[in-house]
Amino acid sequence: MNNERYKRGLAKLEEIDGQAGEHVIASLKDIAPDFATLLIEFPFGDIYSRPGLDLKVRELAVVAALTALGNAAPQLKVHLHGARNVGCSRQEIVEVIMQMAVYAGFPAALNGLFAAKEVFAQEDTMASPTT
Amino acid sequence: MNNERYKRGLAKLEEIDGQAGEHVIASLKDIAPDFATLLIEFPFGDIYSRPGLDLKVRELAVVAALTALGNAAPQLKVHLHGARNVGCSRQEIVEVIMQMAVYAGFPAALNGLFAAKEVFAQEDTMASPTT
Amino acid sequence: MNNERYKRGLAKLEEIDGQAGEHVIASLKDIAPDFATLLIEFPFGDIYSRPGLDLKVRELAVVAALTALGNAAPQLKVHLHGARNVGCSRQEIVEVIMQMAVYAGFPAALNGLFAAKEVFAQEDTMASPTT
Amino acid sequence: MNNERYKRGLAKLEEIDGQAGEHVIASLKDIAPDFATLLIEFPFGDIYSRPGLDLKVRELAVVAALTALGNAAPQLKVHLHGARNVGCSRQEIVEVIMQMAVYAGFPAALNGLFAAKEVFAQEDTMASPTT
Amino acid sequence: MNNERYKRGLAKLEEIDGQAGEHVIASLKDIAPDFATLLIEFPFGDIYSRPGLDLKVRELAVVAALTALGNAAPQLKVHLHGARNVGCSRQEIVEVIMQMAVYAGFPAALNGLFAAKEVFAQEDTMASPTT
Amino acid sequence: MNNERYKRGLAKLEEIDGQAGEHVIASLKDIAPDFATLLIEFPFGDIYSRPGLDLKVRELAVVAALTALGNAAPQLKVHLHGARNVGCSRQEIVEVIMQMAVYAGFPAALNGLFAAKEVFAQEDTMASPTT
Repeated sequence: MNNERYKRGLAKLEEIDGQAGEHVIASLKDIAPDFATLLIEFPFGDIYSRPGLDLKVRELAVVAALTALGNAAPQLKVHLHGARNVGCSRQEIVEVIMQMAVYAGFPAALNGLFAAKEVFAQEDTMASPTT
Repeated sequence: MNNERYKRGLAKLEEIDGQAGEHVIASLKDIAPDFATLLIEFPFGDIYSRPGLDLKVRELAVVAALTALGNAAPQLKVHLHGARNVGCSRQEIVEVIMQMAVYAGFPAALNGLFAAKEVFAQEDTMASPTT
Repeated sequence: MNNERYKRGLAKLEEIDGQAGEHVIASLKDIAPDFATLLIEFPFGDIYSRPGLDLKVRELAVVAALTALGNAAPQLKVHLHGARNVGCSRQEIVEVIMQMAVYAGFPAALNGLFAAKEVFAQEDTMASPTT
Repeated sequence: MNNERYKRGLAKLEEIDGQAGEHVIASLKDIAPDFATLLIEFPFGDIYSRPGLDLKVRELAVVAALTALGNAAPQLKVHLHGARNVGCSRQEIVEVIMQMAVYAGFPAALNGLFAAKEVFAQEDTMASPTT
Repeated sequence: MNNERYKRGLAKLEEIDGQAGEHVIASLKDIAPDFATLLIEFPFGDIYSRPGLDLKVRELAVVAALTALGNAAPQLKVHLHGARNVGCSRQEIVEVIMQMAVYAGFPAALNGLFAAKEVFAQEDTMASPTT
Repeated sequence: MNNERYKRGLAKLEEIDGQAGEHVIASLKDIAPDFATLLIEFPFGDIYSRPGLDLKVRELAVVAALTALGNAAPQLKVHLHGARNVGCSRQEIVEVIMQMAVYAGFPAALNGLFAAKEVFAQEDTMASPTT
């Protein structure tokens, strides 16, 4: 057991992904609980916890990569929330996605923008008073 | 003719890619000269010239995307030089590439790191006195 | 402002994509209005407006590429409509998609065929009298 | 007409994919009936019928590849059922998908695991008595 | 044995790919001779031999798809020769590749153009008198 | 520091990849030494060390995935050696690669077969007496 990496990873996952991260972990419980542990330990405990690169830039890099790959829509949405959680502005996020038109084509950029539109709308709904 | 976009794009291309950019443009002259014009006008004149995102972050986003896609080695190298030209540290570049192991797998990250190793070595060769 | 490219692009977008194109442009208005402009100017104003290749062949080439990439279902459907709009027969479209089994595998071709099935059914619905 | 390949392929398709295979074939009837024939003859009549590799390993290899590519969710689900039909354990399937985190990234592996979760749940529903 | 498909495929392979096709078949002899047979029978005997789509358009569709995928440079070159063999003009080929910048990004289009440049140069060398 | 995972991973890396694995680790020393550690710990210490799936099947799954992705030739070759090291027959390897023609297209399968041809030839060279 590697408690230190796990604790560091869990804290980082919560910092970045908030409830969306917890939801992913919970959804793995009955199919591959060990994968939830590995997901906390390696990406979050090992990679995101490294110094040398700002969390905002890390999240914008993920948004860039997942927009370009275009085959992981749920994870792109999680990281669009994550980018917002760590302080990226909507403009920064939109600019990164638009730029992907150059490197992965217009369809990839369009699908990234539509994902951002959905995430920003959720954010507005959460932020607005319910009464 | 759209001289303003072309001039703005050419200046931006030189700022980011330096001689590597000029080399790409020159190599298109006999196969598709119009594509050289479009490459200057759209990616560099339209996209890279937009406000709202730091050039350093733009280059790190490209390094992330091309590392993740893993099918455009020559352009990844051009942008590794570009990232250095606009002020990214070697550590920032290496961190972005390492992070891609999480989103596109270890082979993609390894090939990105080996490209960076080659680009940094070229940089060292250029920087060192020849006598 | 580059009115000539924009006007040429908008006319070409309407020629190829009809209402589907207008829908894409409208859906970008609140998330990235500049991207709608760039989408009209570069792909449609610059690329599709070029001589030297028949619009029918251009659309079949897009159907081939998006079927092979397999990660841009909404845009594939827009261009399946587009291919029909510029005069491609259903048989030509189906043949191009089937051929992608050779270059990108049977799953990519199957998903392309199912997209075509959906688009052709919409076309039949639109064409049939409602009374 | 090549009856032998077709018959061999149809038998193999039923052995591997059961009803899911028949459903794919049926769904091609009105869009591309020839493609249904080719799908039975080449993948199932030519490839899966070859000696030299166990059907269980063939199905795990497909699960690996479609998880890694990440752009063919319906076919991944068909082959998750197929892997079960030819005798792969749930553990073997989950291990192959988890391993893809190393080669295609965590999002690809997560989406593969969620597909397996869905397929295993369907399997449980089918297996349980309805009264 | 399926002599008719094989003969039809071999004739089609020679019509499209000429010596490059024979070279691919020969290079498979010691690693996977059966795959050479399957390659002749399915892509060339079954797919390329179908009516309903012009061979020129078939080759331009392959050029589009392989340029967009960006991970099969040797096969792209074979089909650039193939496109020329069946009568596509250099301009048509270049236009299809340029168009891929819209659907798969500028790096994919650039690498496609550089492949075309190489193929056209080989063509010029072959065509010029050797004395 | 996590000595147990590292030791377990290093032993597994040597079991699977032999000298090729050591070469990869050594080549990372001056560009990203931490990545060498992560590569030993996560893929080899965490994933390959798991029970529930035979090492032979794990290697065939990697060969399938990297052949299908088609964008990581050096890593495919390392794992073709790895598959042989853990006991896969040449026939099993060739069958897995041929099968990828169905899921990722003939170019991907061809490039996989040519990589196998190269790896098997190196193997023959190593095995033959030098005097």
